[in-house]
Amino acid sequence: MRRIGILTSGGDCQALNAAMRGVVKSMATSGEQMEVFGFLNGYRGLIYGDYRMLDGNDFSGILTRGGTILGSSRTPFKTIREPDENGLDKVEAMKHNYYKLNLDCLVILGGNGTHKTANLLREEGLNIVTLPKTIDNDLWGTDMTFGFQSAVDIATNVIDSIHTTADSHGRVFIIEIMGHKVGFLTLNAGMASGADIILIPEIPYDIDKVVEAINKRKERGSKFTIIAVAEGAISKKDAKLSKKEYKKKLENLVHPSVSYEVAADIQKKTGQEVRVTVPGHMQRGGSPCAYDRVFASRLGAEAGKLILKGEYGFMVGYKDREIVKVPLQDVAGKLKRLDPDAAIIKEAKMLGISFGD
Amino acid sequence: MRRIGILTSGGDCQALNAAMRGVVKSMATSGEQMEVFGFLNGYRGLIYGDYRMLDGNDFSGILTRGGTILGSSRTPFKTIREPDENGLDKVEAMKHNYYKLNLDCLVILGGNGTHKTANLLREEGLNIVTLPKTIDNDLWGTDMTFGFQSAVDIATNVIDSIHTTADSHGRVFIIEIMGHKVGFLTLNAGMASGADIILIPEIPYDIDKVVEAINKRKERGSKFTIIAVAEGAISKKDAKLSKKEYKKKLENLVHPSVSYEVAADIQKKTGQEVRVTVPGHMQRGGSPCAYDRVFASRLGAEAGKLILKGEYGFMVGYKDREIVKVPLQDVAGKLKRLDPDAAIIKEAKMLGISFGD
Amino acid sequence: MRRIGILTSGGDCQALNAAMRGVVKSMATSGEQMEVFGFLNGYRGLIYGDYRMLDGNDFSGILTRGGTILGSSRTPFKTIREPDENGLDKVEAMKHNYYKLNLDCLVILGGNGTHKTANLLREEGLNIVTLPKTIDNDLWGTDMTFGFQSAVDIATNVIDSIHTTADSHGRVFIIEIMGHKVGFLTLNAGMASGADIILIPEIPYDIDKVVEAINKRKERGSKFTIIAVAEGAISKKDAKLSKKEYKKKLENLVHPSVSYEVAADIQKKTGQEVRVTVPGHMQRGGSPCAYDRVFASRLGAEAGKLILKGEYGFMVGYKDREIVKVPLQDVAGKLKRLDPDAAIIKEAKMLGISFGD
Amino acid sequence: MRRIGILTSGGDCQALNAAMRGVVKSMATSGEQMEVFGFLNGYRGLIYGDYRMLDGNDFSGILTRGGTILGSSRTPFKTIREPDENGLDKVEAMKHNYYKLNLDCLVILGGNGTHKTANLLREEGLNIVTLPKTIDNDLWGTDMTFGFQSAVDIATNVIDSIHTTADSHGRVFIIEIMGHKVGFLTLNAGMASGADIILIPEIPYDIDKVVEAINKRKERGSKFTIIAVAEGAISKKDAKLSKKEYKKKLENLVHPSVSYEVAADIQKKTGQEVRVTVPGHMQRGGSPCAYDRVFASRLGAEAGKLILKGEYGFMVGYKDREIVKVPLQDVAGKLKRLDPDAAIIKEAKMLGISFGD
Repeated sequence: MRRIGILTSGGDCQALNAAMRGVVKSMATSGEQMEVFGFLNGYRGLIYGDYRMLDGNDFSGILTRGGTILGSSRTPFKTIREPDENGLDKVEAMKHNYYKLNLDCLVILGGNGTHKTANLLREEGLNIVTLPKTIDNDLWGTDMTFGFQSAVDIATNVIDSIHTTADSHGRVFIIEIMGHKVGFLTLNAGMASGADIILIPEIPYDIDKVVEAINKRKERGSKFTIIAVAEGAISKKDAKLSKKEYKKKLENLVHPSVSYEVAADIQKKTGQEVRVTVPGHMQRGGSPCAYDRVFASRLGAEAGKLILKGEYGFMVGYKDREIVKVPLQDVAGKLKRLDPDAAIIKEAKMLGISFGD
Repeated sequence: MRRIGILTSGGDCQALNAAMRGVVKSMATSGEQMEVFGFLNGYRGLIYGDYRMLDGNDFSGILTRGGTILGSSRTPFKTIREPDENGLDKVEAMKHNYYKLNLDCLVILGGNGTHKTANLLREEGLNIVTLPKTIDNDLWGTDMTFGFQSAVDIATNVIDSIHTTADSHGRVFIIEIMGHKVGFLTLNAGMASGADIILIPEIPYDIDKVVEAINKRKERGSKFTIIAVAEGAISKKDAKLSKKEYKKKLENLVHPSVSYEVAADIQKKTGQEVRVTVPGHMQRGGSPCAYDRVFASRLGAEAGKLILKGEYGFMVGYKDREIVKVPLQDVAGKLKRLDPDAAIIKEAKMLGISFGD
Repeated sequence: MRRIGILTSGGDCQALNAAMRGVVKSMATSGEQMEVFGFLNGYRGLIYGDYRMLDGNDFSGILTRGGTILGSSRTPFKTIREPDENGLDKVEAMKHNYYKLNLDCLVILGGNGTHKTANLLREEGLNIVTLPKTIDNDLWGTDMTFGFQSAVDIATNVIDSIHTTADSHGRVFIIEIMGHKVGFLTLNAGMASGADIILIPEIPYDIDKVVEAINKRKERGSKFTIIAVAEGAISKKDAKLSKKEYKKKLENLVHPSVSYEVAADIQKKTGQEVRVTVPGHMQRGGSPCAYDRVFASRLGAEAGKLILKGEYGFMVGYKDREIVKVPLQDVAGKLKRLDPDAAIIKEAKMLGISFGD
Repeated sequence: MRRIGILTSGGDCQALNAAMRGVVKSMATSGEQMEVFGFLNGYRGLIYGDYRMLDGNDFSGILTRGGTILGSSRTPFKTIREPDENGLDKVEAMKHNYYKLNLDCLVILGGNGTHKTANLLREEGLNIVTLPKTIDNDLWGTDMTFGFQSAVDIATNVIDSIHTTADSHGRVFIIEIMGHKVGFLTLNAGMASGADIILIPEIPYDIDKVVEAINKRKERGSKFTIIAVAEGAISKKDAKLSKKEYKKKLENLVHPSVSYEVAADIQKKTGQEVRVTVPGHMQRGGSPCAYDRVFASRLGAEAGKLILKGEYGFMVGYKDREIVKVPLQDVAGKLKRLDPDAAIIKEAKMLGISFGD
């Protein structure tokens, strides 16, 4: 009999349920007896002892369901060592609940922030296995995260929809794609939907190069331009600011988003009408795509295997087409970003896509 | 031999191409010889004599394609009698091109603004047949417009996607749906996606009733609330302002949209986190849904029939499940709005949906 | 306090859950206290007293879910008066369970067969309210049934997918669409996807006319032809057979489906390669489309209202854009079919679609 | 100035157009002058000199379009050395046209059969670059082919749709997925949609094990079972037959498909109702998914680069997350199959999926 805790933390995304189902199904298939404690709303549930027991029925039919049956919340790593508003020591509280419930291990699904706290709990002596969840695909130690491909599908679909209008009206359209720090999602959705210009955090842009690309299109008879802009896109000029200065600048924008600044600049410099679309949270919602369902299920199954073998302290990741275990201390606190010299960037440029650089 | 001009005007939407294909296919099937002049970018093409000849190939494969193969533009009715920046009399220019090309008639696809100008051209003696295009479904004289059902599908899909995140994070989510003057789209997408609160222009809301509905949900254990807000939703207080005062008020908002105001009010009054999603232009893009393809094709076919019979001065509409011809003078300048006492509103309320009234 | 039984019978379809949610939500919103008995697997559950109590949680999140949370089965009306294999009188058993549970009424969701039994139960003195469920849209007394528009979407999507292959390979493709007795689904999906030929039960076809239409396309340079064939399409020759003779004929076919016969005939007469695709049950599965979700919710809400008012013996239907109550005796045993002279058929022909007549 | 021939051969699939666009766009972006000869309907166009000149317009807007703008056909490698019905030497004819048009190279998009002929043309001295197209993902030398992920999406969607009906009616449902020789597609679609049993060519099944899996589900209270069967699934017994004997056996089946045999066996051995759905050609149709659009574009871009560098005789493939060039002689005549011991198979089994072995 194993006693397993499970929680999902950070922004939700597609295939969280598929991954949890994978963990539990693989253990059940092995014949292992187990009790599953589902902590509610991320680390918050672990801190305050808020959980419910999960059985087979809870995992039936959730392979295709978006969101997370456990709820999620953001519990900033930055303040994890600080007491809560009632003076409770959050880390001690998590340890307390873990030991009180006599858990064999804790399965944690989350992104970058989540992994920092997961590693801290490992350092504190808890048995931890994690799964890489994020639409940003920015987790160090894995080539892929679940949620990413589903978000690419949605963002691509949004840009596809805008395409017909852009074509009919002859405008410049900016679509702001999620991704504050990395551009994987924007790059892939942009390439998939035939965007003409793609602006991502890893390649600071020069607005004049952007305008040049628009004008070149006009010269060749294309009356519209589609620009995919990551939330965290940044101009070459702003890239030279300190982090603090840049944050301040953003706060002073009417729309606290680079897209509107890019739009205003283009409108001023080309005289063309520019429209901004911000699909926002829908990028992390809805049923996971087939790819993510398979991928999350596989990761979940391998997590189940690790637990059965009692191997703890790992994130289950994907490297060079194999599912691997990555030590948590190697993952925590690192960010995987697009290499501006990556083959896919070069290929995008070969296809005529401008990055404004 | 008939010489037919065709143009699409106003914001684009789904099934414009399907409708034009319907007109041309029905005439070709009848064996009628014809020449089709496609005016580019709406009335603009007619004003400046900018057109291209269309043949069968242009209409092949466009049944499923979004946007308009002719391009579109907004040509405000308000200023149609004013000369353009070079002193050109726009109405005279349209008549001039019509007669110069020796057209038998002009097929015009558009929404409310478009129909005012179409009726003006009819008054000026041109032979006009129109088709009712708009995602708003606000055209007088027809129970349905094409584009509407496709937009409902997209908006529903957006709210569906948000649902999983709302559920996982326990927040209030506002989704702003297109519709400055009417609420058909918001109402239908809201009902289809299980929105809890729906705010539309036809039913001014009281923010306290909105808050009350959110709180009632919380009491019953629902940790999230989904609110579908039409672009033109208006509070009871603002509904008492003059048009001018209200416009001024909107201009002073940071986000010139009611959604953000509603969000701020709710956040203030409930303390709950509120997020706003604005899907925007994607609602009028992409491939038309099956319903719209059939509907637009049928309208187009009947428009072709009118032309063959030489019956001009009509919009082809849909009344009580029959396709009918509606005199243009009856359509122009009127707006079809939701009746706050309509059965569908009552049913929505029976289902527990709050309109904040 | 009301005690309400509910069951879904016959082939499942989209929006059954949405409709049931509508009934229950509208009653709950009214403040009415109620107990809901969900009979499992159609009339079977009522016959054998197999049910479970349903509460609010059962109806949460099911608006968008396909299938039926109660399960369904076919219980042929033809043999309803015959005892079951253990000698049980099925009608008496249903009455027995109804009275034993002290039900106020029974809500029944189903198609044609289901309505015959529902009417029988009404004649036997039970309080019945029904909802019109079928992808075939062949229920008498209502302009529309839920499930239909969702099935149109799926069938359209199937034909769309085939279109690209047909175009690339220059073949004749037959897609067999559900509908043994009526052609609404085939007609709408065929029109929506640009099918060239549509064969439906209501318009017996002449294979030579079908071949003629294919050849005419070839002459005009179209190298492929798409044919949408309803399951119940019938040739003019076969239409003259007695029902018995025809049934026998079908049984002797290798593939007991007209599509393969049509395919063989065309291949023989034109020499062109013909492929048959049979999407089958997927047409009744998956999440309901936005239209069906709204429509089923509205019908459900009005059913709830009837129950609250104690008005029994009706199907809730849709006539001339209003939701109406139709006496069960008027519905039972009748079939709504396409009128070969209907406007939509004429329009389809105007668009160049051949019906092989 | 380069003179480039291009053709698509074999069954069509998604992203053929995206890949061709990639080739041409990358060359155009490089500033290279070129003339593009599009051979129609596969090798047939090359044999009979049937082509049309392609320019930028032909490649605009095709990123998202299914099928192939060039048409395709199957030209069996087995008989490529045999003269056609008029005595024409097909290989000589292809060489003749290649030299007559003074081509610099020939870009060929296709699957296994196509690559054999492509390699033959290379051996005959033509400059060849190929791209790996197939929904089967069975090409040797590349980890992935375009079309595959799109087909997974469609097949998954089909099984999803069936799921709701299976659940409602408590039946065994068999869905036959494309793949005569390999099971990648069936495996992935099956895992993505939560199939309970997956039968693929690489793992011959024992019908008694299949029945055992169904019964085990029944015992655990699951009233339905979903089985994904590859077209080329084979029983252990049949796997012992010679190729010739097996072919004969298949020909004697009423439905020349293993699915119906599996269905009949299950029905006989369990008494449960079994339904078969054959989505067929729709699996290779429709708009490519985002993954395939990006992937095909990247491959196309790299093919363009090879041409610019004058490196011929290669297939552009994908190995260990890098785009690579693979000598045609290494690709031709080999088949990539699923390894029954692959991690993904083990994981599927860990998730409780039975392969009937």
